[in-house]
Amino acid sequence: MLTLYYTPDTCALATHAALEEAGAAYALKHVDFARGEQRGPDYLKINPKARVPALATPQGILTETPAMLVYVAQLFPAANLAPIGDPFAFAQVQSFNSFLCSTLHVAHAHRMRGHRWVDPTDTAAIAAMQRRVPQSVGEGWALVEAHLLKGPWVMGETYTICDPYLFTLAQWMEADGVDPARFPKVRDHRQRAALRPAIRRALAAEGTGLPAP
Amino acid sequence: MLTLYYTPDTCALATHAALEEAGAAYALKHVDFARGEQRGPDYLKINPKARVPALATPQGILTETPAMLVYVAQLFPAANLAPIGDPFAFAQVQSFNSFLCSTLHVAHAHRMRGHRWVDPTDTAAIAAMQRRVPQSVGEGWALVEAHLLKGPWVMGETYTICDPYLFTLAQWMEADGVDPARFPKVRDHRQRAALRPAIRRALAAEGTGLPAP
Repeated sequence: MLTLYYTPDTCALATHAALEEAGAAYALKHVDFARGEQRGPDYLKINPKARVPALATPQGILTETPAMLVYVAQLFPAANLAPIGDPFAFAQVQSFNSFLCSTLHVAHAHRMRGHRWVDPTDTAAIAAMQRRVPQSVGEGWALVEAHLLKGPWVMGETYTICDPYLFTLAQWMEADGVDPARFPKVRDHRQRAALRPAIRRALAAEGTGLPAP
Repeated sequence: MLTLYYTPDTCALATHAALEEAGAAYALKHVDFARGEQRGPDYLKINPKARVPALATPQGILTETPAMLVYVAQLFPAANLAPIGDPFAFAQVQSFNSFLCSTLHVAHAHRMRGHRWVDPTDTAAIAAMQRRVPQSVGEGWALVEAHLLKGPWVMGETYTICDPYLFTLAQWMEADGVDPARFPKVRDHRQRAALRPAIRRALAAEGTGLPAP
């Protein structure tokens, strides 16, 4: 049995939607950021990084979205969520998800979590980071639009573990000050992904509404 | 034939050392940051992200270190660099490498590349980021030391694609203001990895000296 530790409106949605897509049996546990539960002793035993998501498996805990997504794809091969037997195609999947975690998500995080990279009392530096988010996140989306998103799905005709991850980060565009109209392929992907039953079930379970189209 | 686009003293060393470890046939191409070659039209055709590393393969270009490492491991199975057939063990490898690219490398990048996340003319904000690097990078190393590095190698007894990547980032500890003496397991790993013939060959080819022990 798998248990996904999540918080709404975080990148946990990517793994959540992949578990739904795969038809996995799993439990959901809400980690309450408002109460600081991610830094409490119980949760730190699950994930010493004090973040979500985390996936408890029969063999131990996994963290980091790209890793959890590959795990789901390997555990449920019938869902065909990653071309694991094709080294180049699989590396392309990994490359896309690595870009999301290390560049696009990181740029976004400078809006709400600037305290990770400067003294938390330095309000001027934190504000400076926030002001730059529309540009830095926008540059990430420009790369996705022009080079990384093959269409209709990220890797082409086949829906893979890249798609729920892209959809998850695309939820944050407007709040990051990035106009989706600049990126028609990304907007089209977001609209189609939002209709996907697995994604609708994951959003409903997290109590988040569907995004604006 | 494979071609690795690299710059000395960057994370390209991880893939370089993995190629050596695998016994791969490959060419090396130096991308000269001093001349801004990574932003020149020729290199942007190879990697529109304007960064190194990139790996040209017969099927196309790959970027992002965790993806290139998995590709090398899959292409050269005899080197046994990743437990690809074991979903949980393989996800642990991915999880470790994801943490390096999205957390530890990102924290480090705030020392030299703060302009990615604030207005490049905001020297106060850039200095604020630089001041925080010893703490943010140190927190990453503390997680590696306490939770992620199984020892003697990252995943235990078997040397994997996690090890050249960890070694690469460990080159930067002193310059990041982090004292390796705080992290004996990491320091021990760095010392043993530095003796590995594949790593010595990669360092020699890049013209970088061996690190202090």
